[in-house]
Amino acid sequence: MAKRTAATAERRPERRRRSDGERSRTAILDQAARLATVEGISGLSLSRLADAVGMSKSGLFAHFGSKEELQLATIETANEIFDEQVLDPAAQASTGLGRLRALLDAYLDYVESGTFPGGCFFASVLVEVSMQPGAVRDRLLAFLQDWMGRLEAAVRDAQREGDLDKSEDPGQLAFELESALFLANTQFAVASSSQSIERAHRAIDSRLEAASA
Amino acid sequence: MAKRTAATAERRPERRRRSDGERSRTAILDQAARLATVEGISGLSLSRLADAVGMSKSGLFAHFGSKEELQLATIETANEIFDEQVLDPAAQASTGLGRLRALLDAYLDYVESGTFPGGCFFASVLVEVSMQPGAVRDRLLAFLQDWMGRLEAAVRDAQREGDLDKSEDPGQLAFELESALFLANTQFAVASSSQSIERAHRAIDSRLEAASA
Repeated sequence: MAKRTAATAERRPERRRRSDGERSRTAILDQAARLATVEGISGLSLSRLADAVGMSKSGLFAHFGSKEELQLATIETANEIFDEQVLDPAAQASTGLGRLRALLDAYLDYVESGTFPGGCFFASVLVEVSMQPGAVRDRLLAFLQDWMGRLEAAVRDAQREGDLDKSEDPGQLAFELESALFLANTQFAVASSSQSIERAHRAIDSRLEAASA
Repeated sequence: MAKRTAATAERRPERRRRSDGERSRTAILDQAARLATVEGISGLSLSRLADAVGMSKSGLFAHFGSKEELQLATIETANEIFDEQVLDPAAQASTGLGRLRALLDAYLDYVESGTFPGGCFFASVLVEVSMQPGAVRDRLLAFLQDWMGRLEAAVRDAQREGDLDKSEDPGQLAFELESALFLANTQFAVASSSQSIERAHRAIDSRLEAASA
């Protein structure tokens, strides 16, 4: 908990120093990230967003020069939120297995708490742009690789620390754990029932038990 | 094999009887289904599709009265293809476990063979419209429920036949198996590598082994 509090304290003064322009930019991007999980990031044009935040299109144009700039800034905002809700809490864990469980649990909490109306920002937007080459897709792929890399690294640490069986293939185990998160997220978004979240927790528990050293 | 051949034979004369108008409608809808996995089904307007198939917008309008009608007809076409590639082959299996394995294997083959350029039509389009209430979303949800119901029914049959452990929760097991398919499909679409398909096969094999009676 100490680390989380420290991180929060560190952020606050920075947030207070923000100018009106920066604060309004943050508010616009928060709205843009929420909207992208409902209508898609491709539909996130300056005029659609102007409607949603009640600003003129020219006012928005002063903040973001182009649709792609707006999309990339929206991804950075979603990434900050993901860091705060998923990565930062897990960084407190003192073991690889503890970090792995914390990442998986925090992800399911982040989905279930309705951070974004359409579920995980990255899951929904990555599926949307998977076949559309460009800077937006590249940025989302880098996010996915980073996330899968974190799961794998936590598995390797847990193997080194003797908590998970060394015969497990870390990439395969990370794939299976992420599978449960990914389906739970989509089913939660379409059905608004926590059954899929509970099933993902059960799947993860039994898989980690089977992999325990 | 007999059943598959019979089904194919039944289909053929029907296809031969199709008029020029029907054949052209089929060709348009095949193209529409492919396009929807790349650009999304929401972007599937009559004018965008007219460009893709080289017809006038008014020519297309003669086939489909509205964008929603076009989208629903596209889903039916994708569903026919799914039936042919995934459901029909599995219908030959003589046991519940055989049918379950056949459904899972046929799904991964359908993804890997590039039936649709953006992976499974239903996975990509369901994520896209998950937050957009309407007839299109309802139709896709019905597809998902039917698919999950088939996996669950095959698990129950395998339990009755003594091939899978009766202590397994069929809904939970179906969720875990579908998880592997769903992530494999998305990772295959973004990375065009068969690693995710192989990982899904391994995940399914070890999960079914753990569940064996």
